[in-house]
Amino acid sequence: MSARQTEGRLAVIGIGPGSAELLTLDARTELNRARHFFGYKPYLDRLALQEGQTLHASDNREEINRASAALELASKGHEVAMVSGGDPGVFAMAAAVCEAIDKGPDHWRALELVVVPGITAVLAVAARIGAPLGHDFCVLSLSDNLKPFKVIKQRVVACARAGLVLAFYNPISKARPTQLGEVFAVLRETLPPETLVIFGRAAFRTDEKIWVTSLEKADPATADMATCIIVGSRETRAVERSGQGALIYTPRFFEEESK
Amino acid sequence: MSARQTEGRLAVIGIGPGSAELLTLDARTELNRARHFFGYKPYLDRLALQEGQTLHASDNREEINRASAALELASKGHEVAMVSGGDPGVFAMAAAVCEAIDKGPDHWRALELVVVPGITAVLAVAARIGAPLGHDFCVLSLSDNLKPFKVIKQRVVACARAGLVLAFYNPISKARPTQLGEVFAVLRETLPPETLVIFGRAAFRTDEKIWVTSLEKADPATADMATCIIVGSRETRAVERSGQGALIYTPRFFEEESK
Repeated sequence: MSARQTEGRLAVIGIGPGSAELLTLDARTELNRARHFFGYKPYLDRLALQEGQTLHASDNREEINRASAALELASKGHEVAMVSGGDPGVFAMAAAVCEAIDKGPDHWRALELVVVPGITAVLAVAARIGAPLGHDFCVLSLSDNLKPFKVIKQRVVACARAGLVLAFYNPISKARPTQLGEVFAVLRETLPPETLVIFGRAAFRTDEKIWVTSLEKADPATADMATCIIVGSRETRAVERSGQGALIYTPRFFEEESK
Repeated sequence: MSARQTEGRLAVIGIGPGSAELLTLDARTELNRARHFFGYKPYLDRLALQEGQTLHASDNREEINRASAALELASKGHEVAMVSGGDPGVFAMAAAVCEAIDKGPDHWRALELVVVPGITAVLAVAARIGAPLGHDFCVLSLSDNLKPFKVIKQRVVACARAGLVLAFYNPISKARPTQLGEVFAVLRETLPPETLVIFGRAAFRTDEKIWVTSLEKADPATADMATCIIVGSRETRAVERSGQGALIYTPRFFEEESK
């Protein structure tokens, strides 16, 4: 993405978990520069916009339409930002923008596309509880709007058997109330009942809620669409501390004998 | 980690890929607050320290000793920072600090431990090339200092077969020159030869180098210890653009028929 001869510019900006303290300087610079903002309304509501900056809020489901509208406005020479919670590349808007360019008119390919990375939810939740991602891990979306549920279960089982820590995005919603419970059920056939499970919501925000349980006791009803769930590996451990919560971490070393 | 009665405080700070623009405000605040800095020397060299701030540089291999020294100094009431490239929770210092607390003296458990997340390498590389992590992915360390090489190969194959995009950290070093080639060899038995492979080094820094090739042509000799490698899934696509590099992305949708 260097040495460009482009017409127009679109910045896809990761704003992290939502607390101003976890915004990068680059994201702040891009948010100041843009005149037009596209994104899911709750993310846009977190921005303190200035005079002369225009919001184009949309529903969570309209990703391709939103990307196309932003690309078309940018191609006309406006300074446009697409705002994404967390990191735009992780189950967020960057892939939708790339897909819109792939399928859209030729002049969108001449645009300058800038993606500003952000702190994605699993990194925020992990930081608040210790170091559960200290070794190999995977990041999976449990939404079967985007892939067959059979494939989701296959991936969950394959990664758990291979010894990875698992992080789940989009674990449950009102329209998909049963999938997380089914995923816990297949995991109980694969991992020990005492496997540590972390539920994290709104990490680093004032309404943060992070709690730890075991695979045996994990209750899908305690999660919602915005919860990030981390399921430990067989190696993931809790360090009890008096006066404060336990630290959860996955050791850097993996001894085959420990399996 | 709330409602603490603690003695001492250690901040484990992710400084992201190394450009000041990708530091979070929280990381900047913690870097200003600390008086003693521990970390791998190249990371510490990137910080512009002020008068009254002391460096305790160390070698890359001495993680537990470094963590223990930082914990002991913090427990004596000093403001101590452990500096980590990228995100401290992803193959970096947070797990070593947790492990030191787990195995160390009781008074280390009374410390306040603060982990400040950062932009980890794979998010930075992905942002510079498009959205290759647009769907499910895994993050694996290829270092067999930390686990048997047989386990590494099993994990690589399991994740590739399950359809995940793969990201590799610590892919190769002078002491481990052959493993990356062996990993590409097992992947060639699992994925099509045209599978897209991204090599990323120093993303967002002035010496950034990011290039795309195919699994068939991927040459391990072009990588070094600081290269992050992303191997696409069967769905990962390139969008050619005139006048600028191709965008690489993994579609959000996965149709089983496409396998």
